[in-house]
Amino acid sequence: MSEEAKFRWIGTRVVRPDGVDKVTGRATYGADFALPDMLWGRVLRSPHAHARILSVDTSRALAHDGVEAVITSQDLPDIPSEEAFVGEQPTNFRELSHNVMARGKVLYHGHALAAVAATTPEIAASALDLIEVDYEVLPHVLDMPAAMAASAPSLHRDLEPAGFAAGATVPPNVSRRIELGHGEPDQGFAAADVVVEREFTTKPVHQGYIEPHACLVQANPDDDITIWSSSQGHFMVRAYTAKLLGIELSKVRAIPAEIGGGFGGKTTVYLEPLAAQLSRISGRPVKMVMSREEVFRATGPALGTRIRVKMGCKQDGRLTGAEAVLHYEAGAFPGSPVQAGAMTMFAPYELEHVRVTGYDVLVNKPKTAAYRAPGAPMGAFAVETVIDELAEKLEIDPIELRLRNAARKGTQAPFGPRYREIGCVETLEALRSHPHYTAPLGPNQGRGVALGFWFNAGMQSSAGLNVNEDGSVSVISGNPDIGGSRASLALMAAEEMGIDYEKVGAWIADTASIGFSDITGGSRVTFATGMAVVEAARDVKRQLCERAAAIWEVEPERVKWVEGEARLEGEPDREPLGLVDLAQRAARTGGPISGRASLTARGVGMAFGAHICDVEVDPETGRVEVIRYTAVQDAGRAIHPSYVEGQMQGGAAQGIGWALNEEYVYDEDGKMCNPSFLDYRMPVASDLPMIDTVIVEVPNPRHPYGVRGVGEVPIVPPIPAVVNAVHAATGVRYFDLPLSPPRVLAGIEAAADRGA
Amino acid sequence: MSEEAKFRWIGTRVVRPDGVDKVTGRATYGADFALPDMLWGRVLRSPHAHARILSVDTSRALAHDGVEAVITSQDLPDIPSEEAFVGEQPTNFRELSHNVMARGKVLYHGHALAAVAATTPEIAASALDLIEVDYEVLPHVLDMPAAMAASAPSLHRDLEPAGFAAGATVPPNVSRRIELGHGEPDQGFAAADVVVEREFTTKPVHQGYIEPHACLVQANPDDDITIWSSSQGHFMVRAYTAKLLGIELSKVRAIPAEIGGGFGGKTTVYLEPLAAQLSRISGRPVKMVMSREEVFRATGPALGTRIRVKMGCKQDGRLTGAEAVLHYEAGAFPGSPVQAGAMTMFAPYELEHVRVTGYDVLVNKPKTAAYRAPGAPMGAFAVETVIDELAEKLEIDPIELRLRNAARKGTQAPFGPRYREIGCVETLEALRSHPHYTAPLGPNQGRGVALGFWFNAGMQSSAGLNVNEDGSVSVISGNPDIGGSRASLALMAAEEMGIDYEKVGAWIADTASIGFSDITGGSRVTFATGMAVVEAARDVKRQLCERAAAIWEVEPERVKWVEGEARLEGEPDREPLGLVDLAQRAARTGGPISGRASLTARGVGMAFGAHICDVEVDPETGRVEVIRYTAVQDAGRAIHPSYVEGQMQGGAAQGIGWALNEEYVYDEDGKMCNPSFLDYRMPVASDLPMIDTVIVEVPNPRHPYGVRGVGEVPIVPPIPAVVNAVHAATGVRYFDLPLSPPRVLAGIEAAADRGA
Repeated sequence: MSEEAKFRWIGTRVVRPDGVDKVTGRATYGADFALPDMLWGRVLRSPHAHARILSVDTSRALAHDGVEAVITSQDLPDIPSEEAFVGEQPTNFRELSHNVMARGKVLYHGHALAAVAATTPEIAASALDLIEVDYEVLPHVLDMPAAMAASAPSLHRDLEPAGFAAGATVPPNVSRRIELGHGEPDQGFAAADVVVEREFTTKPVHQGYIEPHACLVQANPDDDITIWSSSQGHFMVRAYTAKLLGIELSKVRAIPAEIGGGFGGKTTVYLEPLAAQLSRISGRPVKMVMSREEVFRATGPALGTRIRVKMGCKQDGRLTGAEAVLHYEAGAFPGSPVQAGAMTMFAPYELEHVRVTGYDVLVNKPKTAAYRAPGAPMGAFAVETVIDELAEKLEIDPIELRLRNAARKGTQAPFGPRYREIGCVETLEALRSHPHYTAPLGPNQGRGVALGFWFNAGMQSSAGLNVNEDGSVSVISGNPDIGGSRASLALMAAEEMGIDYEKVGAWIADTASIGFSDITGGSRVTFATGMAVVEAARDVKRQLCERAAAIWEVEPERVKWVEGEARLEGEPDREPLGLVDLAQRAARTGGPISGRASLTARGVGMAFGAHICDVEVDPETGRVEVIRYTAVQDAGRAIHPSYVEGQMQGGAAQGIGWALNEEYVYDEDGKMCNPSFLDYRMPVASDLPMIDTVIVEVPNPRHPYGVRGVGEVPIVPPIPAVVNAVHAATGVRYFDLPLSPPRVLAGIEAAADRGA
Repeated sequence: MSEEAKFRWIGTRVVRPDGVDKVTGRATYGADFALPDMLWGRVLRSPHAHARILSVDTSRALAHDGVEAVITSQDLPDIPSEEAFVGEQPTNFRELSHNVMARGKVLYHGHALAAVAATTPEIAASALDLIEVDYEVLPHVLDMPAAMAASAPSLHRDLEPAGFAAGATVPPNVSRRIELGHGEPDQGFAAADVVVEREFTTKPVHQGYIEPHACLVQANPDDDITIWSSSQGHFMVRAYTAKLLGIELSKVRAIPAEIGGGFGGKTTVYLEPLAAQLSRISGRPVKMVMSREEVFRATGPALGTRIRVKMGCKQDGRLTGAEAVLHYEAGAFPGSPVQAGAMTMFAPYELEHVRVTGYDVLVNKPKTAAYRAPGAPMGAFAVETVIDELAEKLEIDPIELRLRNAARKGTQAPFGPRYREIGCVETLEALRSHPHYTAPLGPNQGRGVALGFWFNAGMQSSAGLNVNEDGSVSVISGNPDIGGSRASLALMAAEEMGIDYEKVGAWIADTASIGFSDITGGSRVTFATGMAVVEAARDVKRQLCERAAAIWEVEPERVKWVEGEARLEGEPDREPLGLVDLAQRAARTGGPISGRASLTARGVGMAFGAHICDVEVDPETGRVEVIRYTAVQDAGRAIHPSYVEGQMQGGAAQGIGWALNEEYVYDEDGKMCNPSFLDYRMPVASDLPMIDTVIVEVPNPRHPYGVRGVGEVPIVPPIPAVVNAVHAATGVRYFDLPLSPPRVLAGIEAAADRGA
């Protein structure tokens, strides 16, 4: 049966439920809430990259007219050093607490160390100047070689490095060592005809979401706290805020705002606990909104990496072994995504011998946060560039080389398990057959390809489905919609219920109103929350059949829900009962009809994406222009293809920015020099061609509609696709990001010098 | 077993969850919401009690700087005349629509006929003056004799009176006739030794809630509408607004505010559909807040009544028959509570012969709304005053007379069914044995007693119970908390779950987030929504046992939930698993744990209240002072006794105000002359003694915790208790409310004249 015949709603491009709100400016974001008597909170931030806080005198600020509260770490509980869980995620709340408000030391330029609440934002800002802080400035480390040098200053004296053998020498500021893989890479290299070994570096980049962090918090004297904020998970906001304030979860209600981009950067809190504490002290609601500069300086970007990759290959294109050593900057507290980088980088390939060692390294920069497929793009940059070089050396088409080694069902992943149904081969084949791949190129132009992998996540989700009195249906979930989940959940509900999509409203419920839901992240919501919606819908259909059976006075088993109505088996002449009929009679047949489901989603479908990038390089300036770009991806099944394409395009755009221009520029004092969109160069629409997309569908058999998850993998291939294209255009291999004009030009000139 | 041993939480006076918020001014009411770019809406109201709208010219208003939208009835759908249902409640949406915005005619002074939205409240107010309306003033009727006179102007030409025999002559403006009862009252009167027949009148009074109606509505161009407002039912707000705008329910989300009093007056909409339409037109959020004057003139008070009661009694105190004719003002649209008045007035008594006929009469006043036990206080006023007179004539103690005739299990109610377990006798006995009843009285003082009845309601409710990650519990319902329901629901949840009350948070979910819930009214929430909470808790306990069984790898049937923990049957040494254990392991045992229930509550427990009132009457001025007051009531079971007592005290205070001072004063043009709390005299704290309370508990066997419902019946006895007390103090019987000083003085003077 064709897909079109199989589904009525799945795979259709219905009008986006969040579209009109957003384009008309009516969507309500984190900064859009207000309450009477509201105060404005502002944060005092460290002017040093590393310093001991000798004293903080808030008395002058507190005496300032209009200032209602001032807090420092002394006004927050001192959280013991224990790892606690939110859902399945271990979180070190002591470190979180110290990041939200420095205690004892400031660890990066921009680190919060005090906050004020005042009657106007202007008063709050000027009161910051009245807080007197006595610092003992300490030496700081901004890059990993410096941080790991024997003489390096230590960020955390009580650091207990994990993953090292007993008695091993651990360099300073390394918080964790990880290792994974199987086989013996050295055996593989020995068997290889060609071995390539390269070292790569990437710079810190920011997710660059449009909406700065913002919240409004009302803490009542009996510790009932209501939080309105924009985040990727209001259950996370509730849990983190409650934990940092030592309050029970049932006392806190977190109400989600529309989110103006998160990309992983809104999976933690910065402002909410401070606003809550300021509100507790002042007895008034407190609103806090970051400036763009604060977002850059003090939230969690993707930090820098240094990656060494070695791969061996036979003449026939068969990979014989692979090895990598990863150093990932964590920022001021442990927690880089080095584990994910290690797991994903070689994941697209079938490798008998593979080993990755990774290190999480502390530096005096803001604590890193997730950024779309966290850790994976850097690894892919390294591996896919090496593969490109192997293909070049072996004179094998680069897609062909990848196909010869592509992971498939049964392949053992570097991180352990054997793959189930995956679409790596199908994705590469779609890439190869795309007309883009064979289109002619002009002078100074080059083409690159790359492959990327992301696991996708499952985790916990809850959903509800309420039948309204008029037979329309409201679907609720506990996940902020960062990329179309309201549409995909409503489509699955309509499909499952057999009713018109137009009859389904999709909404996000606050933390009191629905069961626990893990963050919106890991490309998991359409997959996992979608499963919960389907389960809730089945719960409702069961009830609808029972109601119909009661009306007809028959056994419930005789009633089936078919095409949006209850039908009585064996009696085709019996007028069916639709949702409207049953909703209107609900009061007399037992009450309102609503279903719910909470689950831990198992059976994630892993995702592969492969991209083609054409660039033109100006040999005189080194400026790289992306002139054509095609992204191919296995979505499992695209519930709403336009959103899937949007995710692919957005991921590609972010990856291109990362490859070409984006970077945190630090001065020697550890201060970021470019904390604005004027100086931090993200691609804008005019910088990019239309990103073409091809959705491949290899359904995930463990999801009722075959969903894998689509949001993250599209940021994995762009960096190497761009870098390989620049190599193709210039003949120069680049190993350090970004490929900004000076670096590209330097490469061209060095090559010319070598050639000359 | 004693109650204390039986229950750990039920019946305890835990700290009120809404208390601190309210006394510290932090509770968020309807007028407390704001959004960026918000407009302010104002309503143009009729200056006539009855007039044809010949034309409305909004062009000058629309041209006014800062005015963004102007609407009249032409901008709202013309709703067909059909009765639709919200839950089990039939609602005439055409009439509702015409009340919200006059169409063709204005029917009362204050009737809305246009609305504007402007950038400031001041501009909106001044723009109202620019709307040019051409009226043809029509004759109006302000009282029922005038309305029913043969020559009376008709409010609704298309009125189709209900309940009359075919061919019967129906007076003008009578919309409905009802009749109920059993037996032959004339037979009863023939058998009586004493017959008393009296006629009573009551004046319109307002519920007098502190918070005026207020809302904020954001309507997006794709017709997704979000409403923040204060009401007794956000599902009602959603249903009414959606219906009046012709929008599907799944498109509308109504978010409840804290409510600053409703007492039945917030069971319908006035502003929300107008704000929504103004928002649709302007594309901006619209906020509307009524002034106190608007609340008085244009919302739904309890309107005037005229009641004739005839009762016969044997010398031994046995009632032989009862008959009543009720005329209830409906205001400008049909819908007085005459049916409820007819059903309740004789309900406390066992009567072989009883008949009540009632009429719903249209007058040019605002459409009446519910007011706490709607319709009952007026009927009780009449009946309980007649009973008092019978007791006087028969020289039987008035409580004894009531006890001799008191309804009990098996008594046939005047409205049909036979009573199940009721506490009428127990309530009267508690009244009689209260020391107040035999306390001495001073000069010019008198004591009155009265008995009252209210059915209480069931209807539809939904509830959810979510187990948080830390083992605390959030209870949600779809019912605004007007009198302590968050506390009572949380107490029942704690009791049912066997956990600390402190671990339970109670919250109200918006219309998207929970199953349909009928309005908060009819004293039904602790009863009906309580049932849903208990059912949801049992759902959760079942899941908790399953999780424990999975952890222990045993059959779920072997696990029991006892005292807040899962225990393995037959293995007393097995460490039990508590909520914290199971919550922390939820992610690995199947996901979040949450339960829900939606139901139509059956098995309501009817309520009786009996009050003693002592007054002192100043014979020179006629001023009545209530000097002592005791309210006794069968609560079924008082889940949180302090809230129950608060309901009893509040009902008594409102009834006392109704008896003594409150009334709408109209001028001859049909304009209310006293639309402010300065001129409309409600009792304040200094006017009243402490209201003593005695809770009787005759559990309702059809509720898991014996709940009946407590909010309404306490307003039923006060009027006759006060009036009987004034009679006792002065020797004068009063039949017309209020007993304001001039009326009381006139009575005293007339009696003196007769005596002289």
